Amino acid sequence: MPSFKKYRVEDSKFRLASIDPADAPFLEGDEQAQQERLDHLAGELDELQNLLHAEGRRKVLLVLQGMDTSGKDGTIRWVFSRTSPLGVRVTAYKAPNDDERARDFLWRCHANVPRSGEIMVWNRSHYEDVLVPWVEGWIDRDEVRRRYAQIRDFERLLTETGTVVVKCMLHISKKVQRERLQARVDDPGKRWKFQRSDLDVRKKWSDYQQAYEQALGATSSKNAPWHVIPADSKHHRNLMIAQLLVKTLRGMKLALPPADSSLDGLVVE
Amino acid sequence: MPSFKKYRVEDSKFRLASIDPADAPFLEGDEQAQQERLDHLAGELDELQNLLHAEGRRKVLLVLQGMDTSGKDGTIRWVFSRTSPLGVRVTAYKAPNDDERARDFLWRCHANVPRSGEIMVWNRSHYEDVLVPWVEGWIDRDEVRRRYAQIRDFERLLTETGTVVVKCMLHISKKVQRERLQARVDDPGKRWKFQRSDLDVRKKWSDYQQAYEQALGATSSKNAPWHVIPADSKHHRNLMIAQLLVKTLRGMKLALPPADSSLDGLVVE
Repeated sequence: MPSFKKYRVEDSKFRLASIDPADAPFLEGDEQAQQERLDHLAGELDELQNLLHAEGRRKVLLVLQGMDTSGKDGTIRWVFSRTSPLGVRVTAYKAPNDDERARDFLWRCHANVPRSGEIMVWNRSHYEDVLVPWVEGWIDRDEVRRRYAQIRDFERLLTETGTVVVKCMLHISKKVQRERLQARVDDPGKRWKFQRSDLDVRKKWSDYQQAYEQALGATSSKNAPWHVIPADSKHHRNLMIAQLLVKTLRGMKLALPPADSSLDGLVVE
Repeated sequence: MPSFKKYRVEDSKFRLASIDPADAPFLEGDEQAQQERLDHLAGELDELQNLLHAEGRRKVLLVLQGMDTSGKDGTIRWVFSRTSPLGVRVTAYKAPNDDERARDFLWRCHANVPRSGEIMVWNRSHYEDVLVPWVEGWIDRDEVRRRYAQIRDFERLLTETGTVVVKCMLHISKKVQRERLQARVDDPGKRWKFQRSDLDVRKKWSDYQQAYEQALGATSSKNAPWHVIPADSKHHRNLMIAQLLVKTLRGMKLALPPADSSLDGLVVE
């Protein structure tokens, strides 16, 4: 298995440009082999999720961040193609509504942390509430610093109370985003996914790349590390995240709870 | 395709005993053919769910009720084996907690209705809050009648506001429940699922059967009908519910929203 080390953010001076979105170290063999491999990993993830549920103590939180069309939805569809909706839940975060803006920015996220035995996926997350206001100029550098400190504290609370936090930044090139947005415009079956506001965000591409770099450097910790996922290739993106999750859940040494021996020999009438 | 009519509750004088839990009209061919059929239906359900999401107006609520071991979890796992967790969510209801008991019994359910474009599955439901208190003797016949009227009103609200409600009672025999509970006791890998309290509920089997009969008769409406699913065979249960959902979603005539022609010829820079 290739190493994740190169893609794990371990330094506050981390440079996003050091990782090529077209990298594909986890891609092996032809398309059929890749599909079989993903299917195999998705199956293993299902077995691990069942153990997580049976154990009933710990939780897993997968945070997915990335520019428009970076493949957050597709990741969820394919990586969790073998798990039951009983054990995997998704929360999608959009621009905060009035009710959410009336509280601190972590309020709505805290309301959606995973339960014991559950894998929760955040499709966008609390990071949006720093990235967007910073790029848009609604908050200053001091407030950004405060929010990243608050995020570190929040994530430490989660990990100290039994949640394994996996954070992935889906890293695509500006060129690939152009192709994918154009495909949404051109394909009548995809056009409903396209929003003109996507183009406004695209114009701030380099501001967002800088903001991501800052976010990753400021909040990658030993307990809640960021991984940058080269995502120009959808297959690579899926395989790398599936592999990362399987590795992480294996590392949790999940096991069935010990059988209650007081039930030995019980006959159901 | 076999008819659902016999299994749809259309009469307040409905008799649960008229349906044999061992019936299996939707079961055809050998086990491999059944598995392929289920896989095909699950795939079609995925396509229909994508259209439901793209349309973005209507919602689907699947209510699953049944005695312990009737297969609610298994149904969710297999019927939704091809859909993305992005579009299918599950809410499991347990005995109400203090916070829930401090409100009316529909409060916690209303908080978990599906969003536009979403399929929501209720693993147990508001019906538990009539079945259990009635069998346990905590509420009288008048209160039962009031609650069923309140449920009919609530479900009419949902259907009038764009939710298609599908209600399934997973119908197993007392004998099959005994076998499945015994398997949980005997198999060390399953024992963690067994609770002694399941045996207490089992002792009230016929009370619960009567309570179900009453519930189904009182709350099966044209908009939110109950189907009794013969569920002694797990394959039959899965196939029948998958088929019912596919038929229901097909009947919604889901379609992509019309392509926004103002985007014709737009070039992404």
